[in-house]
Amino acid sequence: MAKKQEFVKEITSREENFSQWYTDVILKTQMVDYGPVKGTMVIRPYGYRIWELIQEQLDARFKATGHQNAYFPLLIPEALLRKEAEHVEGFAPEVAWVTKGGNEVLAEPLVIRPTSETIICEMYSHWVQSWRDLPLKLNQWCNVLRWEKSTRPFLRTSEFLWQEGHTIHATEEEAQEETMQMINVYREFAENVLAMPVIVGQKSEKERFAGAVATYSMEAMMQDGQALQAGTSHNLGQHFAKVFDIKFLDKDGVQKNVYQTSWGVSTRLIGGLIMVHSDDRGLVLPPKVAPIQAVVLPIAMHKEGVLEGAQAVCDRLKAAGIRVEFDTREQSAGWKFNEWEMKGVPVRLEIGPRDLENNQATIVRRDTLEKTTLSLDTIEDSIKALLDDVQQSLFDRAKARREERIFAVQTMEELQEAVETKHGFASAMWCGERACEDRIKELTGATSRVMPFEQQLLGDRCVCCGKPAKVNMLFARSY
Amino acid sequence: MAKKQEFVKEITSREENFSQWYTDVILKTQMVDYGPVKGTMVIRPYGYRIWELIQEQLDARFKATGHQNAYFPLLIPEALLRKEAEHVEGFAPEVAWVTKGGNEVLAEPLVIRPTSETIICEMYSHWVQSWRDLPLKLNQWCNVLRWEKSTRPFLRTSEFLWQEGHTIHATEEEAQEETMQMINVYREFAENVLAMPVIVGQKSEKERFAGAVATYSMEAMMQDGQALQAGTSHNLGQHFAKVFDIKFLDKDGVQKNVYQTSWGVSTRLIGGLIMVHSDDRGLVLPPKVAPIQAVVLPIAMHKEGVLEGAQAVCDRLKAAGIRVEFDTREQSAGWKFNEWEMKGVPVRLEIGPRDLENNQATIVRRDTLEKTTLSLDTIEDSIKALLDDVQQSLFDRAKARREERIFAVQTMEELQEAVETKHGFASAMWCGERACEDRIKELTGATSRVMPFEQQLLGDRCVCCGKPAKVNMLFARSY
Repeated sequence: MAKKQEFVKEITSREENFSQWYTDVILKTQMVDYGPVKGTMVIRPYGYRIWELIQEQLDARFKATGHQNAYFPLLIPEALLRKEAEHVEGFAPEVAWVTKGGNEVLAEPLVIRPTSETIICEMYSHWVQSWRDLPLKLNQWCNVLRWEKSTRPFLRTSEFLWQEGHTIHATEEEAQEETMQMINVYREFAENVLAMPVIVGQKSEKERFAGAVATYSMEAMMQDGQALQAGTSHNLGQHFAKVFDIKFLDKDGVQKNVYQTSWGVSTRLIGGLIMVHSDDRGLVLPPKVAPIQAVVLPIAMHKEGVLEGAQAVCDRLKAAGIRVEFDTREQSAGWKFNEWEMKGVPVRLEIGPRDLENNQATIVRRDTLEKTTLSLDTIEDSIKALLDDVQQSLFDRAKARREERIFAVQTMEELQEAVETKHGFASAMWCGERACEDRIKELTGATSRVMPFEQQLLGDRCVCCGKPAKVNMLFARSY
Repeated sequence: MAKKQEFVKEITSREENFSQWYTDVILKTQMVDYGPVKGTMVIRPYGYRIWELIQEQLDARFKATGHQNAYFPLLIPEALLRKEAEHVEGFAPEVAWVTKGGNEVLAEPLVIRPTSETIICEMYSHWVQSWRDLPLKLNQWCNVLRWEKSTRPFLRTSEFLWQEGHTIHATEEEAQEETMQMINVYREFAENVLAMPVIVGQKSEKERFAGAVATYSMEAMMQDGQALQAGTSHNLGQHFAKVFDIKFLDKDGVQKNVYQTSWGVSTRLIGGLIMVHSDDRGLVLPPKVAPIQAVVLPIAMHKEGVLEGAQAVCDRLKAAGIRVEFDTREQSAGWKFNEWEMKGVPVRLEIGPRDLENNQATIVRRDTLEKTTLSLDTIEDSIKALLDDVQQSLFDRAKARREERIFAVQTMEELQEAVETKHGFASAMWCGERACEDRIKELTGATSRVMPFEQQLLGDRCVCCGKPAKVNMLFARSY
């Protein structure tokens, strides 16, 4: 019991310390733990189940858009990593090196994949010969490793789980279409499944993927007003195709290099999910990724008929395809309320003698903590409708929060105020020069996030240098 | 087209060279390719889809028996690996070492997990305090790496994909029950899903897992009469619990070490699947793991109504939940027959003008190549029944083949003949001494596989030394 008490002890409030709040939530809900190697995490069942639900729903979208899964090796020869100049510059400083296998020192060191462009390009160069082999649209679900200095579970860890799509195409147009299609798949998934509103656009040259022609990103706003890059899609052009010699014989009889894309999301999404929706009581989970969507609590469960009555409701919900848990542990009702609230279960059903008498269940929804009653006659449909409503409300709430915190700014003072004082995003006009990006970062801690597809025309001068502006850019502090 | 021709060129016959036949089949069907690092493989979509179907159906069985998935880190500190003496002795010679992260040489080298007992035990020691925390039954799907000298895709590769279950229990009995439950889950899965008959029993002390009290295995017979260890379940007793200090406060107020199990199957199952069922034309896949269960070929497809008629049948099969492919490519019918036979698709439907006139489809099943016709009126049900029949027939055929090749032997000459000349398993009585196991291996190349649960009493003397026999043991050459 001592342990259980600790389990539900106070979570630091967001107001007091957002970062500590996050750590408290992920550890106390047993989603994750720290691994023995610095910067690594153990994803515990409650966290991993969310990842499974993310995988399932994303994978269906990948398959529906014509992608197939495959698996490429973990270890990449150093020479492959070094082939594409920008890519190696970007990744070499953060890879882990395998230098010994069994008892032998390796002649050529191997890197643990930080991402798999290089090894996949190597294989594609063997597989592709004619335009008939294109497009080739593969994805893999795997672990990758980046030797990070400063880490936090889910948000940035040395090893993380992700999916990486890698496609090659006969034409530039097709590659660009694929790049855009996938950032839109991510956006739709983030908004409809994770209930996480995102702003989609293109990254600046400074922030784009090492080796890409263009990087598109979806950026979400956390409750502390910081941005989280939640998924990226890259148009790689022919950069990799040229150095890896991925060629095909086109219909016109000419040998050409392919055009390429890559795109990925990771376990970082779980961190985003938490920081967008959860509150001082603990997790708040959107029903579509909640390991448990509804918990049934028999109240005064030793009274005649209660357990049986509650069990029957539980069975009906399960049969209706709802992920439901039946909690018959001996703890007090109050203790259980706290625990399930902390765990973020979207809907709680309390069923006691009075409820059964009245052919009803008492319902509490996690997002608003509103209490109501529902007739048992149509409980399956009512709970499903309620779950849909929670899903939508979470999205609406997050979107409203975000809208309040995006500030159109004209001056550096306003930009600074937007990110520092008002804890939000600054939407500004920008000349497109790296010097201004660097200066804004130096002065405000904000980095360029994306040039939103939905451009706001806020004037014709760069917020930083005052020279003619090229584009509307979103600036924010970020994870 | 040159490439396509190569694609269907002759596969070496099993008779001529079984090993080359296997390589031809896996490469020509594009299930797999060799990775750039020696001993690694790339699992291509057609192979990976089989792994997904295996995962899906096994994972449902794990969840139904009360297990949850989690994810533990890839990298294990050397000190953890070294904690359990037998375990480190078994695995240290075959691990890959990470000695550098980013630009820093690591103070303590890390190993890439060859299996995860040590890191999971480390975490369990933090998580478990009371009998209320037990049993803890976790599984993870992941990649592992063992620095193997001699490799072959799916059967033995440096890196492979697998699942590893790790459970801890309050009592020895419960751990033994779990160990047996999981080997039985594997058996049922192998037989009912992979159509692969297996012999289940306990391993000798020599062959058991490094650190286990007892290892149980399922062994399958390949078409060349060699054995494949297809899945193992280990009772780890308290070996790891003691060195990792995994303790709990029991109901009686006493601190005790937990009892532990682990169990796993890997992408090796795909190799087994191929070597049990396939033939000189290529793959033969059991419907339950076939990426494509039925292919619909419109015959004379430019004749009026053929494409539409065939498409309609295809749509109906898809709607009935059958994994179906519609092949409208411009190649000849003969070319397509060859290709889909090579790919192992269980059922082929040919639909031409005559078929449509007669309201029928011409059907060829891959396992027997029998041709028949089926009415379109009930085509969904007929194809489903046919797929069930193929599934069962493959199992029956493999089992009959195996039964013919298990020889009860009384002498070393008979044992040698059984494995060398008759290419089968030898069932013999054994004294239980390692010296006899070693001698049998030296003389015949056969290793001890399992002491089958279904013991045959073949006499009272050891086949090798003639001393009193303790047990019936299966000997075979193996992969």
